[in-house]
Amino acid sequence: MATLEFWFDFASTYSYPAAVQIEERAAEREVDVAWRAFLLGPIFAEQGWADSPFNLYPAKGRYMWRDMQRLCRARSIPFQKPGSFPRSGLLAARLACSFEGEAWLPDFVRAVYRANFAEDLDISEPAVIQRCLGCGDAEFESMLAKAQAADNKMRLRDQTSRAMQLGIFGAPTFVVGEELFWGNERLEQALARAADQ
Amino acid sequence: MATLEFWFDFASTYSYPAAVQIEERAAEREVDVAWRAFLLGPIFAEQGWADSPFNLYPAKGRYMWRDMQRLCRARSIPFQKPGSFPRSGLLAARLACSFEGEAWLPDFVRAVYRANFAEDLDISEPAVIQRCLGCGDAEFESMLAKAQAADNKMRLRDQTSRAMQLGIFGAPTFVVGEELFWGNERLEQALARAADQ
Repeated sequence: MATLEFWFDFASTYSYPAAVQIEERAAEREVDVAWRAFLLGPIFAEQGWADSPFNLYPAKGRYMWRDMQRLCRARSIPFQKPGSFPRSGLLAARLACSFEGEAWLPDFVRAVYRANFAEDLDISEPAVIQRCLGCGDAEFESMLAKAQAADNKMRLRDQTSRAMQLGIFGAPTFVVGEELFWGNERLEQALARAADQ
Repeated sequence: MATLEFWFDFASTYSYPAAVQIEERAAEREVDVAWRAFLLGPIFAEQGWADSPFNLYPAKGRYMWRDMQRLCRARSIPFQKPGSFPRSGLLAARLACSFEGEAWLPDFVRAVYRANFAEDLDISEPAVIQRCLGCGDAEFESMLAKAQAADNKMRLRDQTSRAMQLGIFGAPTFVVGEELFWGNERLEQALARAADQ
């Protein structure tokens, strides 16, 4: 089966509609999706940005919020501009990295995006993340332990380095073989490419 | 008739496919196109950029050139990566501003983009621009005089200020009423919006 890698960052606004739509669109084309959580922060830092470009460049930021509002409305995706941006997706990314192949992962990823961009909740808070996982305290503690273990912290760092090596500079990015497709609007084009291979 | 403003900069790569396709697409939806040349340089300078972001951020630049190649090939638009980037579009923009409403303007704009991004010619050279206009020496001299007169230089500066006031931060940008649509990929969405009004 053809495969597309979906590279996402939990603080990335445009990754949210991509995460919501990707499975249905990929299934239509019989393309398998590999979910790849990574951190944009270190990549932005390499470019000399200590904050999101949407904060550093206000005109770009204003446009993005209006665009997200239009785009989510057109696709019936719940959205409200969060009270704080960007929120740290580190904990969620460690969990997504640790449980990368699990069948429940896409639902968790979407729940985190909804928490951040529809419910205005602080996704850096463990309690919010536990709600997104929908599990009890004991199970959550054991998942947290696995996600925050040294080897898994390193795994997320390696994944972020791999993103950089692939030439990824923003999210979402769809990767098919050596081809990158940057931005939510490129999902169809990326899927067409994957289906072609 | 519904109207869409097409804001373009002659050094902007993604404005090239937009300029090639916009008239046919707009005609299908019965939308009138107002061509608005402006300069991204002063807008980038306000953001602290002394060069194109595609040069300042190499990963972004590499992606853009590959993406342009794919995108132009898919739409049968001739393209080759120019030997120098960005080239100054000042002279072409002054002409486009001076002759904004002329029926021949879209053909001229496309000829300049082709010179820059398909023929690798230096569009800051008057001889290249004359070829794009397809006129004789005497006519060219008189057009140049009009385009480089103080009032027209001011007109282009005012147009660039208006772009900034509208919140434009990149090109191409399509403007419908108060709504901005940034990027070549948003042409259809912008036209749909214009047709709806």
